[in-house]
Amino acid sequence: MTDLSAPGHGFPESEFETRIARAQRIMREHEFDALLLTTPHDIRYVTGFETQFWESPTRPWFLVVPADGKPIAVVPDIGAPQMGRTWIDDVRSWQSPRPEDDGTSLLASTLAQLPRRFGRMGAELGREMSLRMPVIQFLDLRDALPGLEITDGSPCIWEARRVKTPAEIARIHYICQIASEAYEGLVSLISEGEHLREVCRKLSMDILRRGADAVPFLPAIAGPDGVPQIVCGPLDKTLEAGDIMFIDTGSTYDGYFCDFDRHWAVGDISDEAKRANAAVWDATEAGIAAARPGATVEDVFDAQSKVIEAAGSLGNNVGRMGHGLGMQLTEPPSNMPGDTTLLEPGVVLTIEPGMEFAPGRMIVHEENVLITEDGCELLTKRAPREMWRID
Amino acid sequence: MTDLSAPGHGFPESEFETRIARAQRIMREHEFDALLLTTPHDIRYVTGFETQFWESPTRPWFLVVPADGKPIAVVPDIGAPQMGRTWIDDVRSWQSPRPEDDGTSLLASTLAQLPRRFGRMGAELGREMSLRMPVIQFLDLRDALPGLEITDGSPCIWEARRVKTPAEIARIHYICQIASEAYEGLVSLISEGEHLREVCRKLSMDILRRGADAVPFLPAIAGPDGVPQIVCGPLDKTLEAGDIMFIDTGSTYDGYFCDFDRHWAVGDISDEAKRANAAVWDATEAGIAAARPGATVEDVFDAQSKVIEAAGSLGNNVGRMGHGLGMQLTEPPSNMPGDTTLLEPGVVLTIEPGMEFAPGRMIVHEENVLITEDGCELLTKRAPREMWRID
Repeated sequence: MTDLSAPGHGFPESEFETRIARAQRIMREHEFDALLLTTPHDIRYVTGFETQFWESPTRPWFLVVPADGKPIAVVPDIGAPQMGRTWIDDVRSWQSPRPEDDGTSLLASTLAQLPRRFGRMGAELGREMSLRMPVIQFLDLRDALPGLEITDGSPCIWEARRVKTPAEIARIHYICQIASEAYEGLVSLISEGEHLREVCRKLSMDILRRGADAVPFLPAIAGPDGVPQIVCGPLDKTLEAGDIMFIDTGSTYDGYFCDFDRHWAVGDISDEAKRANAAVWDATEAGIAAARPGATVEDVFDAQSKVIEAAGSLGNNVGRMGHGLGMQLTEPPSNMPGDTTLLEPGVVLTIEPGMEFAPGRMIVHEENVLITEDGCELLTKRAPREMWRID
Repeated sequence: MTDLSAPGHGFPESEFETRIARAQRIMREHEFDALLLTTPHDIRYVTGFETQFWESPTRPWFLVVPADGKPIAVVPDIGAPQMGRTWIDDVRSWQSPRPEDDGTSLLASTLAQLPRRFGRMGAELGREMSLRMPVIQFLDLRDALPGLEITDGSPCIWEARRVKTPAEIARIHYICQIASEAYEGLVSLISEGEHLREVCRKLSMDILRRGADAVPFLPAIAGPDGVPQIVCGPLDKTLEAGDIMFIDTGSTYDGYFCDFDRHWAVGDISDEAKRANAAVWDATEAGIAAARPGATVEDVFDAQSKVIEAAGSLGNNVGRMGHGLGMQLTEPPSNMPGDTTLLEPGVVLTIEPGMEFAPGRMIVHEENVLITEDGCELLTKRAPREMWRID
């Protein structure tokens, strides 16, 4: 088990007061009278409301952040008792499912009562967001509120969530340590001939045993001397001598993700693959060195890209070299050309260089770092420069 | 381990041909020239494409089902290699993330080339669906295709998915059996004093050990002689004498869910709670008896409701008494007044009566059934009429 002690589940009310104060300051800059939130992560961010019931697509849930004061929840009856136990005082609910009006009129009347200064409300309409309600219902809501412009709130929401609080960082650090140690321990659990689905089953169980709450993302991919892609797996494949196995994980603790990968060589692999792996490890070092306050994420991309290019990369279908991390597996910003987001203390970032070193054979490394006052701090246990070996 | 043999992962091409033929027949009835799909379940339903990468909200993915012929995939580069290994021949991709045009123009040109007969395309805009792309991007797409009406395709999509194939049923049956046996075995893993998070950890690991692929939904809730709600948990609570513990699970195998719950008494509980539990068990029997071809889901609701009412129910914040089940934890139809969906062979339904038997104390049972030619078949192992006991 990890040396870090578990941060525990749930946050004091002061945590949410801090988050809302920050969000409302940013809302004023965006000239929003309110934010409308519908997604699991955004609703949990401001309320602490934790449920796995989001798996059911049947009922929409709503959370309104006004310009001043505490948020208002507008939720199905089934969720009202527990929402009433959060720090939210004003919980309104309706009997759902109700196909003819599944919360629309209750939400519209709630929004109509809010004070208006700018006449604008932000909603989850933009980049890296999907509204969790039927689009038709959203358009009906918009029509029901002619005096209120409902516009893209995603830049505002992402900005509010981008800088993590110490309590959030403690959770990300903890899950990073758990997954790091589970990765280290995997060599003793598996061997050549193991099916990739069994590899995933064993690793998932071990991550849970070590204290994670859930393992929503655990692709494992293997192929002769490299993998052709890194997002689909486990597929129908057993580990054979000469394979390189790639495993990535987004495991969670108290609502926060890690997101990093590791590689294993099954028996002997080629010198070409070893060289590529070392180059990508070096690119990670360069990315970590570049990740500091005042740098942009484009700078972090450039630092990694130089090393990869020098190593003879054929390209990289990932499209970037790292991204934000927190309540979701990937969050803005993106370490890529054109993203000039400035790094500041409290931002959690993945450093994720990758390259195709031969046609159909990729190596992608990943570590998670916290931007500090004068650089960055590794939240994961750094990968070894040479792959682990399985026999 | 369950007596059922594992159905295995993945489907032959003929399975997808069957699904698409059914979908295209229903599309013609709805007068659609195409369907636009963006969500994990809908895309997997027609392609077999399996990934956990949906956890990343950064990139939109698109799948177009034309009126005739095979679907066309329009996906980020990162997903193209594996999409090319499905039965789909036409895979188009773009380098993503690309904030200024994250697939919009490629998708618009793909749609513009399709033959038009009705001038209408269905998208995931309606009930029990959320579009998995930014709303702003959707509105841009709509503007880019002035001659094509993009309208609500959800009734068409849900109708296509409602009747399950034998291969789909085998998967739901298998995961139902795994979870049934894990529930039965739980009494030997836990005891009074156990924290609910530990209960969930142990049960999740056991469900995985028995062969499930994932356990995305496993709320455990406990309270003195009953629970006030059934969707949020585990919370910070240890099992104490006199508690009733409720656990529900949506575990998955090869992309298919089970969804059913069980109850445990910690030591002695009240006669009132025992009577309520027996009444809800009897209501489940009534629901199972009513679930047959030619009946509506409203009939299934009525059969359960009568028993619950006679037992003195104070109400039920769930809002219905069961629903469809398949690639998602809950699917249409809803067993509730006003839903007149006719049952037919191949439909998989949850039977889920519940009642508040005293203020703040609920009992909700659930089983999963398959509608057959002349009635229904239980896919879960029937709960005992008396709760299991933990000491």
